Amino acid sequence: IAKVAEDYVPPTKPTFKIGGRVHFDTWDFPSNTPGIGFFENPATGNDPENRWAFRRVRLETSGDAFETMLWRIQVDFADPNDPAIKDVYIGWDELPGNTTVLLGNQKRPLGLDALNSSRFNIFMERPLVVEAFNEDARRLGLCGYSYSDDLVYNWRYGIFNMENVSGTGAYLGDAFQGSGNARLASSPWYDDSSGGRGYYHWAIAGMVANPDGDVLATTPHSNQGRFRTRPEARSSSRWIDTGAIAGADWYEVFALESMLNVGAWNFCGEYQTTWLQRDNGMSDVNFHGGYLQAAYFLTGEHMAYDRKSSTLSRTKPFENFFLVPDCNGNFGTGWGAWQIAARISYLDLSDDNIQGGVETNATLGLNWLWTSHSKMQFNAIYGDISEHRPVGGYTGGNFWVMGCRFMVDF
Amino acid sequence: IAKVAEDYVPPTKPTFKIGGRVHFDTWDFPSNTPGIGFFENPATGNDPENRWAFRRVRLETSGDAFETMLWRIQVDFADPNDPAIKDVYIGWDELPGNTTVLLGNQKRPLGLDALNSSRFNIFMERPLVVEAFNEDARRLGLCGYSYSDDLVYNWRYGIFNMENVSGTGAYLGDAFQGSGNARLASSPWYDDSSGGRGYYHWAIAGMVANPDGDVLATTPHSNQGRFRTRPEARSSSRWIDTGAIAGADWYEVFALESMLNVGAWNFCGEYQTTWLQRDNGMSDVNFHGGYLQAAYFLTGEHMAYDRKSSTLSRTKPFENFFLVPDCNGNFGTGWGAWQIAARISYLDLSDDNIQGGVETNATLGLNWLWTSHSKMQFNAIYGDISEHRPVGGYTGGNFWVMGCRFMVDF
Amino acid sequence: IAKVAEDYVPPTKPTFKIGGRVHFDTWDFPSNTPGIGFFENPATGNDPENRWAFRRVRLETSGDAFETMLWRIQVDFADPNDPAIKDVYIGWDELPGNTTVLLGNQKRPLGLDALNSSRFNIFMERPLVVEAFNEDARRLGLCGYSYSDDLVYNWRYGIFNMENVSGTGAYLGDAFQGSGNARLASSPWYDDSSGGRGYYHWAIAGMVANPDGDVLATTPHSNQGRFRTRPEARSSSRWIDTGAIAGADWYEVFALESMLNVGAWNFCGEYQTTWLQRDNGMSDVNFHGGYLQAAYFLTGEHMAYDRKSSTLSRTKPFENFFLVPDCNGNFGTGWGAWQIAARISYLDLSDDNIQGGVETNATLGLNWLWTSHSKMQFNAIYGDISEHRPVGGYTGGNFWVMGCRFMVDF
Repeated sequence: IAKVAEDYVPPTKPTFKIGGRVHFDTWDFPSNTPGIGFFENPATGNDPENRWAFRRVRLETSGDAFETMLWRIQVDFADPNDPAIKDVYIGWDELPGNTTVLLGNQKRPLGLDALNSSRFNIFMERPLVVEAFNEDARRLGLCGYSYSDDLVYNWRYGIFNMENVSGTGAYLGDAFQGSGNARLASSPWYDDSSGGRGYYHWAIAGMVANPDGDVLATTPHSNQGRFRTRPEARSSSRWIDTGAIAGADWYEVFALESMLNVGAWNFCGEYQTTWLQRDNGMSDVNFHGGYLQAAYFLTGEHMAYDRKSSTLSRTKPFENFFLVPDCNGNFGTGWGAWQIAARISYLDLSDDNIQGGVETNATLGLNWLWTSHSKMQFNAIYGDISEHRPVGGYTGGNFWVMGCRFMVDF
Repeated sequence: IAKVAEDYVPPTKPTFKIGGRVHFDTWDFPSNTPGIGFFENPATGNDPENRWAFRRVRLETSGDAFETMLWRIQVDFADPNDPAIKDVYIGWDELPGNTTVLLGNQKRPLGLDALNSSRFNIFMERPLVVEAFNEDARRLGLCGYSYSDDLVYNWRYGIFNMENVSGTGAYLGDAFQGSGNARLASSPWYDDSSGGRGYYHWAIAGMVANPDGDVLATTPHSNQGRFRTRPEARSSSRWIDTGAIAGADWYEVFALESMLNVGAWNFCGEYQTTWLQRDNGMSDVNFHGGYLQAAYFLTGEHMAYDRKSSTLSRTKPFENFFLVPDCNGNFGTGWGAWQIAARISYLDLSDDNIQGGVETNATLGLNWLWTSHSKMQFNAIYGDISEHRPVGGYTGGNFWVMGCRFMVDF
Repeated sequence: IAKVAEDYVPPTKPTFKIGGRVHFDTWDFPSNTPGIGFFENPATGNDPENRWAFRRVRLETSGDAFETMLWRIQVDFADPNDPAIKDVYIGWDELPGNTTVLLGNQKRPLGLDALNSSRFNIFMERPLVVEAFNEDARRLGLCGYSYSDDLVYNWRYGIFNMENVSGTGAYLGDAFQGSGNARLASSPWYDDSSGGRGYYHWAIAGMVANPDGDVLATTPHSNQGRFRTRPEARSSSRWIDTGAIAGADWYEVFALESMLNVGAWNFCGEYQTTWLQRDNGMSDVNFHGGYLQAAYFLTGEHMAYDRKSSTLSRTKPFENFFLVPDCNGNFGTGWGAWQIAARISYLDLSDDNIQGGVETNATLGLNWLWTSHSKMQFNAIYGDISEHRPVGGYTGGNFWVMGCRFMVDF
């Protein structure tokens, strides 16, 4: 060690890493009842259009400055004329208690599926409840991240501004529309000897928010008391949506996570409930939802897990996909990893005079991992919406959606 | 070889390369007849404005994942407020028959000058016919690329969506507006012994397209039955333009390429013809055009050629340009490579009741290559337009344009 | 040396470097008189809003091509939906007389604080006069940069187009709206033996500009005879502003710089004056301003200086900031570098019938350098505006602003 210390040359400039991802989607809306057309196109009631689209074209750079600071910039070009920022922050590392503190645009601690990278999630789009209560996840804020020495516990806690600034990079407003978020996660069982093929995960998280539902028309910021989500597919509109809730004063979200992995099997569920208080004598409202899912690797791999952040990590196929001719004119082949999955998802955004809608979705998924950094995902979704405020006279409907994603990250 | 195999360490993550280019243009419109003013500014008839503009400010990243997959992202910032994607794809490599398959935004196989990189083309802007029948070249699609073991033949063939999504990243529409494209290219003569100073190239290509000319106003996609082009210079408007052709049902393009290189001389020509069928009893229409060009390196270099893709490649000057003082107070100088070129170009977009215009251009070009990765291009263009549907009462006109480009790639 | 020459392998492709910066700001407007509300929001007179915002999210690449050429691309994503280009140029290096020539978007030589990098400036935002007479600094142009062998003198001189194209990448217009700019700078005293802890800097610079104040409504370019600036803070509007000055024909700027550094102390001042000639018999007008500032490192460092460009350079703290537990459970700590500063700034944009306003600001600053590449800046500004053309009936006002910036570059 003395030898290493002697040879140690302190860095003279920050380190620099580059990465990115390409996610390319096709979405097909083969059938739906008329109400769905009105939720998608309120003016015309036309069916949702099929589409080919880049979902993520993301470039990112990150590094650390002199071992005790770090930074990260992610820009997404999936909508090329209007890029968006994702993670953009600076931070302090190696603080007492295995702590890192980040300042800037980063994910709010709320919902396992929101914290999982889009590179690793089992389904193409996040569950209804996770998207609705933590829309697009990232906000400007200051957040601390710590873990216990034995890796059994980790926690994160921060204050955030509520406005999504991925397109503008700025929040303007004298009324601080803030939230406090915290999450405590644990992996009490983690089978190190098998490289993490067995583990149990639980977490609790909460959010207390001040959405300023009495925002004045003359100020540049907007009422942040609104919950909405797409149907776990890339529709143009968000089909269930409370709209901005007039008089939204404070709201609180409570969230539970649980995940069990046994070899090739992974079982996961989350539940979240939100209480929202309104002023001007309007009654309080409650919205809530959850999901349950199971996944199984036909080829025997397992969903990798990161104990320091308590999120999913990168799965490496036992054998990559390839089809290469050898010198005898035969083909060498590898078939990659194959995973099947099913999810039931539920969200109730209707209470009192707020009729955002109630949605239940069932999804079948198939993932074909070509390599540890590239895969194909296929999802077939059947969904049902009810208790929606009438649009074109319709308060509900049901639909089928098929999605296919081709993705690589680097 | 056994030794190498022993030492072989399989990669654990994708490789990563970075590059880009800067093209900076000045364009001068010294004289034109009044009709040209109306083609440029239909409302006012004002002369085309001179301009200084970035033509390309492009950053790109690419790499391969575990040798059998690859990916590429190119983003262009020449219009900084509205970036555009160029190549964005993922792919599979080392498939049987020297085959690569790419999925994503990529060039449609149609027209040699469209497939040549803008870094290597002899003239500043592509010929009328190539731009009109393969506007901006790149589309969402799935395309295979193969070559024969002896490099004499290569071919590419794919299906593409017809909408240019460089600004939006997405195609929405239930009517699949698709095309099938294919190109077979060959270099039957290629003088390996001189490093490719002599070669003969030919290719045939075709496209069958379904532009959906009966698109309804209520759907988000648009009629793709339209052919148009700028005057081989960066005007604000496209001066000849069929407009969206009502009832355009199907169209077929047939394209021929031929190129002969003898030392410092390069001769190249292409011809393309398009038949378009309209429904509702309207007669079919035909548009066609071509160009012939010759180029000569005064300093003796030759236009490099890539036999695997049958496109132009990077020319390296015998001596770079430099002007550096030595220790005796004299100047060391190098003059780079100098190339002169001429092109005649023709395009007829007028047939039946579609009066897009007929244009004939003559261009003189001078290229000064400072290094293999940087050069200056100068073009002087005289053009004549006729048979254009009347704009401000004018059906034609003629014009002079001078352009100068400064470029580097890396 | 002969050995080195023998081993020398000429490069086969350009070199490539990557870097960037993140600047994240909070701005607080705790008090102001009503006139300030109208300068910020002319329609409503509302107070300036507090804000959290990315000020710079910049990625840059640069390199040299074969030792005699160079290039650079900087793109800023602080407003993610509308990126902006900063430095984008190609250039020729190693020319006689220690000369480099750059072509493209680059800073006009006018004003020390404008030429200093935003990474190194002592205050968060540039002085009133520097911003008003060289708004956003960068323009399309051709500019030469030279220095004397003894480093005592350096000079730069160029021609530029006057339109700010950071958002569009292009200038359109037959009237060449150009300027000629030049700056001669010197460091007659520079204490090499202490690593530059003592130096004296002076410079003179000038600009002659043709803003085309008679621009017609039918041409795409606009009258460039306009001077304006924010209050040395990130307000939404520019509070003093001449507006586009009708008939602005030519203007001339003359600028003086002076800076003295003695160990931890730095003293700096600039003065600029602008004469503008109007046609149509309107009288000429004059605008002018300046600033004085002093800064002191409590921890003893000094403001580094680059003699080849005569601008501020990177300061390295004696000790980085860190708070790291050691193996005994104690904390190792380092406190970084601390600097205090004060600035008085003045700008008069009111003359004859042009009543842009007169502003005087006093700023106190505190800089906490965590490392050589990261720091925090805090500014408290008191300002007073008068002689402004009436807005909402107000011709002046005063205000307090507090700003805090967190920044890292890499």
